[in-house]
Amino acid sequence: MQNPFMAKAIELSIENVRSGNGGPFAAVIVKEGQVIAQGTNRVVSRNDPTAHAEIVAIREACRVLGHFQLTGCEIYTTCEPCPMCMAAIYWARPAKVYFASTGEDAARYGFDDAYIREQLQLPPAQKKIPMAQIMRDQALKAFPLWEQKTDKIEY
Amino acid sequence: MQNPFMAKAIELSIENVRSGNGGPFAAVIVKEGQVIAQGTNRVVSRNDPTAHAEIVAIREACRVLGHFQLTGCEIYTTCEPCPMCMAAIYWARPAKVYFASTGEDAARYGFDDAYIREQLQLPPAQKKIPMAQIMRDQALKAFPLWEQKTDKIEY
Repeated sequence: MQNPFMAKAIELSIENVRSGNGGPFAAVIVKEGQVIAQGTNRVVSRNDPTAHAEIVAIREACRVLGHFQLTGCEIYTTCEPCPMCMAAIYWARPAKVYFASTGEDAARYGFDDAYIREQLQLPPAQKKIPMAQIMRDQALKAFPLWEQKTDKIEY
Repeated sequence: MQNPFMAKAIELSIENVRSGNGGPFAAVIVKEGQVIAQGTNRVVSRNDPTAHAEIVAIREACRVLGHFQLTGCEIYTTCEPCPMCMAAIYWARPAKVYFASTGEDAARYGFDDAYIREQLQLPPAQKKIPMAQIMRDQALKAFPLWEQKTDKIEY
């Protein structure tokens, strides 16, 4: 199956390597048959570890739509999203995601998402990056303020 | 234990609710005893579903450092990071993370990270947001290009 949106994303992923902007990944976001945003991996060129193709494209699509949700949108990404991007997709709530290569394909070229996915399942004390809990009681105070706020926008 | 960096983050989280900028979350990033960046949840005020406190602070800290890694930095976040932010932390590679309230505390106020964490473990076909694989063979072409690129910066 040849899909023009995925074909565009693949073209962008190849250009992204050639131009030296970042890793071999790109994403295109479509609403009602129209491309509304695209993104490529810009981690090294923007000094931003969160600038994966999907995150760049989600942020751009939300800017275009003027909303923090991608209701009714489709994301075409050249590779199965890493755990950061997959969770970002859940927060953005598009209608559907199309991906081409798999996380395993990416892992063969050094992009090891499986390690992060495993780490996410561990309790804080067992994680490889040390995590310590302090000052819970003080921090809890922000939550009732949020609950009581009558004009808040839930997300 | 009273920690001045976490106390600052908690103060920011409370201000963030009062000002209507977003959810009750904030983060502060410290290097060599100095605050180099801070972030609060800006999802609704910036129309950006990825603008969680930790992501905002990580992007700012990397901008300040001029690098895509947070080597030697500590992140102080008012709440245990959601899966998106936790994975972003793994990509940013700080030395240590301090958190105050837990994901369970946040869930009691409607921030349900556990649902996303569960979804991340499911194969694409079983995920709640539909995920379909197409055009893998064409997408794979970007990887050898990346591998052969002699001047690439790995991340």
